[in-house]
Amino acid sequence: MTNTSSSAQDKPLDGWRLKLYTIIFEADTVAGRRFDQAVLIAILVSVAVVVLDSVQSLQTRWGGIFTAIEWFFTLAFTAEYVLRLICLRRPLSYALSFFGIIDLLSVLPTYLAILVPEAHLLIDVRILRLLRVFRIFKLTGFVNEYTSLGRAIQASRRKILVFLSFVLMVVLVLGTVMHVIEGPEHGFTSIPTSMYWAVTTMTTVGFGDITPKTDLGRLVSSLMMLLGWGVLAVPTGIVTAEMTAQRQQGGNGGGATSPSTTRTCPNCLTEGLSHEANYCWKCGTELPAHQHDAT
Amino acid sequence: MTNTSSSAQDKPLDGWRLKLYTIIFEADTVAGRRFDQAVLIAILVSVAVVVLDSVQSLQTRWGGIFTAIEWFFTLAFTAEYVLRLICLRRPLSYALSFFGIIDLLSVLPTYLAILVPEAHLLIDVRILRLLRVFRIFKLTGFVNEYTSLGRAIQASRRKILVFLSFVLMVVLVLGTVMHVIEGPEHGFTSIPTSMYWAVTTMTTVGFGDITPKTDLGRLVSSLMMLLGWGVLAVPTGIVTAEMTAQRQQGGNGGGATSPSTTRTCPNCLTEGLSHEANYCWKCGTELPAHQHDAT
Amino acid sequence: MTNTSSSAQDKPLDGWRLKLYTIIFEADTVAGRRFDQAVLIAILVSVAVVVLDSVQSLQTRWGGIFTAIEWFFTLAFTAEYVLRLICLRRPLSYALSFFGIIDLLSVLPTYLAILVPEAHLLIDVRILRLLRVFRIFKLTGFVNEYTSLGRAIQASRRKILVFLSFVLMVVLVLGTVMHVIEGPEHGFTSIPTSMYWAVTTMTTVGFGDITPKTDLGRLVSSLMMLLGWGVLAVPTGIVTAEMTAQRQQGGNGGGATSPSTTRTCPNCLTEGLSHEANYCWKCGTELPAHQHDAT
Amino acid sequence: MTNTSSSAQDKPLDGWRLKLYTIIFEADTVAGRRFDQAVLIAILVSVAVVVLDSVQSLQTRWGGIFTAIEWFFTLAFTAEYVLRLICLRRPLSYALSFFGIIDLLSVLPTYLAILVPEAHLLIDVRILRLLRVFRIFKLTGFVNEYTSLGRAIQASRRKILVFLSFVLMVVLVLGTVMHVIEGPEHGFTSIPTSMYWAVTTMTTVGFGDITPKTDLGRLVSSLMMLLGWGVLAVPTGIVTAEMTAQRQQGGNGGGATSPSTTRTCPNCLTEGLSHEANYCWKCGTELPAHQHDAT
Repeated sequence: MTNTSSSAQDKPLDGWRLKLYTIIFEADTVAGRRFDQAVLIAILVSVAVVVLDSVQSLQTRWGGIFTAIEWFFTLAFTAEYVLRLICLRRPLSYALSFFGIIDLLSVLPTYLAILVPEAHLLIDVRILRLLRVFRIFKLTGFVNEYTSLGRAIQASRRKILVFLSFVLMVVLVLGTVMHVIEGPEHGFTSIPTSMYWAVTTMTTVGFGDITPKTDLGRLVSSLMMLLGWGVLAVPTGIVTAEMTAQRQQGGNGGGATSPSTTRTCPNCLTEGLSHEANYCWKCGTELPAHQHDAT
Repeated sequence: MTNTSSSAQDKPLDGWRLKLYTIIFEADTVAGRRFDQAVLIAILVSVAVVVLDSVQSLQTRWGGIFTAIEWFFTLAFTAEYVLRLICLRRPLSYALSFFGIIDLLSVLPTYLAILVPEAHLLIDVRILRLLRVFRIFKLTGFVNEYTSLGRAIQASRRKILVFLSFVLMVVLVLGTVMHVIEGPEHGFTSIPTSMYWAVTTMTTVGFGDITPKTDLGRLVSSLMMLLGWGVLAVPTGIVTAEMTAQRQQGGNGGGATSPSTTRTCPNCLTEGLSHEANYCWKCGTELPAHQHDAT
Repeated sequence: MTNTSSSAQDKPLDGWRLKLYTIIFEADTVAGRRFDQAVLIAILVSVAVVVLDSVQSLQTRWGGIFTAIEWFFTLAFTAEYVLRLICLRRPLSYALSFFGIIDLLSVLPTYLAILVPEAHLLIDVRILRLLRVFRIFKLTGFVNEYTSLGRAIQASRRKILVFLSFVLMVVLVLGTVMHVIEGPEHGFTSIPTSMYWAVTTMTTVGFGDITPKTDLGRLVSSLMMLLGWGVLAVPTGIVTAEMTAQRQQGGNGGGATSPSTTRTCPNCLTEGLSHEANYCWKCGTELPAHQHDAT
Repeated sequence: MTNTSSSAQDKPLDGWRLKLYTIIFEADTVAGRRFDQAVLIAILVSVAVVVLDSVQSLQTRWGGIFTAIEWFFTLAFTAEYVLRLICLRRPLSYALSFFGIIDLLSVLPTYLAILVPEAHLLIDVRILRLLRVFRIFKLTGFVNEYTSLGRAIQASRRKILVFLSFVLMVVLVLGTVMHVIEGPEHGFTSIPTSMYWAVTTMTTVGFGDITPKTDLGRLVSSLMMLLGWGVLAVPTGIVTAEMTAQRQQGGNGGGATSPSTTRTCPNCLTEGLSHEANYCWKCGTELPAHQHDAT
């Protein structure tokens, strides 16, 4: 009840910084929700532009416009990033958090493309492009539902690891066997290539770029496919057993039990604080009054 | 109990319109069942003709007969459509309902093919052809069982959406990664193409029209396939958990609990009204006496 | 308790016919078990010979031996078929039963190949060959376990039919869509071919002999694959829910609850009669004393 | 309680052999754990070297280093194998046990490659290489988790066998049908090849190296794919039902109930003996005091 953290830096935010903070980090006011929606649309549009820009015919025609839009969103996201840093008391802890790094990575590629203008390095720019797509992961901040799937995967973590290690052992042994049986002349040029083929076969993807040609190879492949199907029934079994159990425990797996808010501690960025809380339950910081609309 | 809707247009149908209505919209009399069976067969035959007509060799030989049959069924379905409009008090609400639109779309293409006779537009006629196949959806009116599957999908709607958005994010990121690694020279010409490849790979379809050629690309593909299998175990888990739950709640998922009729409100087209009902439970219209055979 | 079927033809078998009957139709004596094992091995060997004979290189070298073995087994199975007919009181009911027809079909092809010796009809002989493979279905007589799987499929029959009709509708509509989008120049030559491609895609087989080339076609394909995976999670869900239910009802699904015998009614061929039974529970025929070894 | 096995050879180990035994066979002391970790890393590194050595470009460049590393690990594993034999009282029972044979097979290939130096036999050396990969199975010794998966498979053994025999029958019959329909000119050169294709199709792998070209063949293939999907839903159902049952019986399938040790009987190599045990529960041998660190 008593405020034990009395140092100046731990004082709750106030004035325009509190207002900004409420808009940017929380979504319980009209302004906050509008801001989040705007960011969501901006992310989708900017990703769409990156995708379209990669199509040669569109790039030739609208390349300039695409670049302009890309720059517009890069600047907008940069501004947003700076504002996020400003309205926090400990910007560094944000900058080093998972989403802080994602936010930074989603604006950097466009800038790096200027600094490295040589034509023969354009191929590097492509790899920076890739990083820009990580921007989309900001979407996860808005979707509360992922928690359920995450929990199911978390609970089956150990089983999945054992399963994966078993699959890798089988893939290694059978990949080697096929490398020996078929040899380089039928496309199984090396053990890594044969392992790639073995994964392709056991997951039932079956591209067909490498296929067994000898009778023995085809026999081993047939056994692999049957084995593969049996083995790969295991993750389905794990996930299904987990989901059936979650259903029977009364939860619908949607995390609907906790009346969630987007109230966020300005010190340690813990999310989902209760409306009534005066102090963060994690770091003890005194919280500013929660600004939210009655709903 | 008391009839509150006393306007002239709300009076129950009578005479030949009621008889027609009972035959066309309901299936609880001998005539109604025969009519439905006839429509069912007509749909199957006319769809079969469209399918066979698309085969070049058959089209050359029996093209004339196919066109004749197509016209016969188009006229028959047109007559049926007109009769449906006539025997209803509010034809517009039928015309704008889902099945009303399907009924219209299933006859329009043949007529449109006359109005647009230019040779270079034949390719458009093909797309109209496609719509004719929608005629088959009228089949659903006869099959009561679809409800069960629909209910299972309905119940898992939110989970499936979250799952799909996750898959799309993974497909986008990994599609971009492969576009960067393999590049246009190995078939990954653009991000959309790479995303198509990523979907092909993660759903374990694996056409093999585009395949990774570099070692790094093959490593990433292998990880994708394993990830893909794990990720795609999720819909199976969702559906299975839902079905197991439905079984345990006593229902066999076949909607057998409600003794279903095909009695239909002539005003709002609500189906499955009880034999004893005097008024539609949805719009309050006074219903004509239900004509049905003892069974 | 009293024997009501007193006609001469209903009298229990006796003498050598009863002995033969016990050996051929039942497997509760040493001789009966040995006979069944011999038939089992004969089936496997003769099928193996048919399979090896189809390989060109082996056929050239050992064609004569293969033909000899095939004739040996054909004669042996013919003798067995005749003996089966002899030791039954109503041979016709056996000859018209499912396994009676299978037994006949498994010997006919070899004889038919003599009667039709023209070279240009050899291609027909091949199709007769195919029928010989049906001989293997006699194996099912020995495996009691199939019942369990059969029961699970039986219980889900209605659901599977609804599911299949839905898949066929989706395949028809999407096959037509792809025929219109891609057209004959990309391999989608007709609606049946497009439907074959749609089945290939939705079942995640993905041969890659026909693949979409246009951007729109690839988009539709991607949606199809995701839809296909969702749709095809349904049979897994159905089977799993059924199996989970069977487990919980105490049975291990192996039909182990009934202490099974191979005692067979010589009149109506009902299998699994109890040791103590004096009359067939199905047709009321008086049964000969059950000959079996203590186990 | 009383020691009945009093012969000299059954006396517990002592001195350096006991020390060595504790380090090599058990992992409850610091030294024992370090040894196991070292072996684990050695296995992974040596397998990695074999894999990399198979890549032509790497082999050309670092072939010498790879051979050196391979020899180093071969000698190390040989030394380990000899030490294992020395510190046991009954080395033969180890040498003939599953892991004893694996241990031997993992060092033999390198030596055999010397004895058979002729160039034209290098292709044989490749097959010996393959055996070296079996070395990785020693990993299983470290992972306690495999037990759970093994138990699930054990419990469903009979069901899986029935399922496999059914799949093989379907594959045989449909492979023959396709051989007859498509014939050698479309790639279905023999029944074994057609069976390979049938397995490829029914497991939804679909390489596409052999594909049906005729309309009838495509129809049969489509039916096969739908059937295949239904049939292959069965192993998923079996595994899932088993896993759901295991969950409900309170176990999380990870074998966490038994506080496991790595204490091993020096006589019969039974693992997981309790800390307090004085005699092996399997063979009755008097055990040396268990050396372990408090944890």
